[in-house]
Amino acid sequence: MSGAAVSNREQRVLEIIETTRAKRPKLKDERVTMAHGAGGKATQTLIEGLLVPAFDSDALAELADAGTIELATGSGDAVGICLTTDSFVVRPLRFPGGSIGELAVNGTVNDLAAAGAKAVAISVALLLEEGLETEALRAEVEAIATAAAAAEVEVVTGDTKVVERGHGDGIYVSTSGIGARDPRAELSPAGLRVGDRVLVSRTIGEHGTAIMLARGELGLEAEIESDTRSLWPVADALLESAGAGLRCMRDATRGGVASALNELARASGISISVRESEVPVLAEVAAACELLGIDPMYVANEGVMVAVVEPESSDEALVALRSVEGCEAAAELGEVRAEPPGMVLVETAFGGRRVMDLLAGDPLPRIC
Amino acid sequence: MSGAAVSNREQRVLEIIETTRAKRPKLKDERVTMAHGAGGKATQTLIEGLLVPAFDSDALAELADAGTIELATGSGDAVGICLTTDSFVVRPLRFPGGSIGELAVNGTVNDLAAAGAKAVAISVALLLEEGLETEALRAEVEAIATAAAAAEVEVVTGDTKVVERGHGDGIYVSTSGIGARDPRAELSPAGLRVGDRVLVSRTIGEHGTAIMLARGELGLEAEIESDTRSLWPVADALLESAGAGLRCMRDATRGGVASALNELARASGISISVRESEVPVLAEVAAACELLGIDPMYVANEGVMVAVVEPESSDEALVALRSVEGCEAAAELGEVRAEPPGMVLVETAFGGRRVMDLLAGDPLPRIC
Repeated sequence: MSGAAVSNREQRVLEIIETTRAKRPKLKDERVTMAHGAGGKATQTLIEGLLVPAFDSDALAELADAGTIELATGSGDAVGICLTTDSFVVRPLRFPGGSIGELAVNGTVNDLAAAGAKAVAISVALLLEEGLETEALRAEVEAIATAAAAAEVEVVTGDTKVVERGHGDGIYVSTSGIGARDPRAELSPAGLRVGDRVLVSRTIGEHGTAIMLARGELGLEAEIESDTRSLWPVADALLESAGAGLRCMRDATRGGVASALNELARASGISISVRESEVPVLAEVAAACELLGIDPMYVANEGVMVAVVEPESSDEALVALRSVEGCEAAAELGEVRAEPPGMVLVETAFGGRRVMDLLAGDPLPRIC
Repeated sequence: MSGAAVSNREQRVLEIIETTRAKRPKLKDERVTMAHGAGGKATQTLIEGLLVPAFDSDALAELADAGTIELATGSGDAVGICLTTDSFVVRPLRFPGGSIGELAVNGTVNDLAAAGAKAVAISVALLLEEGLETEALRAEVEAIATAAAAAEVEVVTGDTKVVERGHGDGIYVSTSGIGARDPRAELSPAGLRVGDRVLVSRTIGEHGTAIMLARGELGLEAEIESDTRSLWPVADALLESAGAGLRCMRDATRGGVASALNELARASGISISVRESEVPVLAEVAAACELLGIDPMYVANEGVMVAVVEPESSDEALVALRSVEGCEAAAELGEVRAEPPGMVLVETAFGGRRVMDLLAGDPLPRIC
């Protein structure tokens, strides 16, 4: 196997995978497993096999990071409002570069940013375990306040529940957020066209790696910090530079850049080709991922945007991205192709090609 | 002690309570307890002593059931959008009259209704415990879909997380919702005036009692069903009949009608006087509450609205309320007075008076 040519055997492998993936997934498991929360195949099966059919919502069926509804105003106008929600169950609560409270704000702000909306208001629902130290709670409340201020978003409402010792894990946080869709945004996960370019806003894999190191499970001593941050400046730079040439954005969290690209490839019925050599990864992260036996493309990020832009806009968009603080390593890592539809292929550094499918299990539980 | 006259001793008691309550509560506990989630005094201390000061938001500081923000639209207009959130940790997951999924939809729809907004879209975040039976999940997903359809609200976005066995309790659900503020609504918890009437939309205490009976902790065999339902028809009837004469609405959930009235009395700096004999309570609920040793006024409801209306509108509002399905027992249960500010007093059936303060502990844990 060499170069970009596809051998007969490889072609047959692709066909088998393609046929399998074209079917609507069915939820056959008798019990919920950790994999259902991992953002990979099992999560997809749960969402597409159970949730989407049950809720029968066009907005939900788009499987975007946020739902958009046209809301009638009192005066009879309509306004496009984006709503998003996310729960956070990360372990440990604090880690290099961030904490659960900061994640909870940025995660929701970033889902809105990916939908082309600047977050204006968020809600915070705290699910506390009896016996939690008040100081730990205070620290997270302050982290939420600080992150909200940094993202210029107001915490307008909240809720607090307490469950008995042994039925939680200190703090779980659910945040939801709203924002008005930016008039510059004409985004759709189904809008990708052959020739479009795939951009990534910075080095990848740092959040998930930082969490694994913080758990001490690797025995590796490296200074890797979570990349958690608001992605609105990134979305704003892309909207401003590419305008209607910006097809879609994805916040590459659980399941990493690989899952974000797979979702887009399926939604648009196109193929995405990634040049492995162009993927920006810190050496420390690459080393940790080797030890973990996981491709950094699958590792969760909390401050990495994946964007697809039309070819004419890609150079300008990349320049705009690199001008955003923290995004100096932004890169174009691939492009949209016609075949095989719904799939992501990686051109390896050694000239080979392989399928980069959704994750099957849950190698990194409770990462966000 | 007899009649409405206040004795010297009673006056002194009221003064002491008043002075104590006027202080901003301080969170002094070293650890989180079940009481912090019960909707009574400890919850108030957590919210006002930690969350409100940290988040520094005018919308949050109003302590309403939903936060309202003026959202700029693309065309330069502004629209009043209400956002609310709630987590549900009820035990057992299914009980007579409802289930956690149905509660999760109605709870959020009702918070919006109380803010004078018809819910248009909700988000659903599922926090699942590893090992949960898929059928139990499927049942709740269907309950969510059915309740959403009944409330005419769309599930537009969601999230799913899984935690390891022993770190959850089957299913926790967090829902958030948005709606545009109804143009008829001029509501404020601080807008109560002396002479205003206090209405309640139906019999109280059924939800909490149904849960306690479902746990089998009472040994009482009575057929009591949760009152969980959408309160938008109630809000709509009140807005239509009382218009600007409708001062405020509260969804009387955790902490019951007593907590809702206490919050309003504090927010407006007035007193609320309740005539115990006018409070509608089913005999089965009254009996169960006797056995539990708790006043039904403190028991959680999931389909009871408390409303305060100006005196001129109260008769018409009551007629409108009673015309709503399920609200035939709506009643006027008291009125707003000047003294003692910030407090709720009950005129008992025997001609006495007593303070109906916020709950101190958590007699009914995990009720919603």
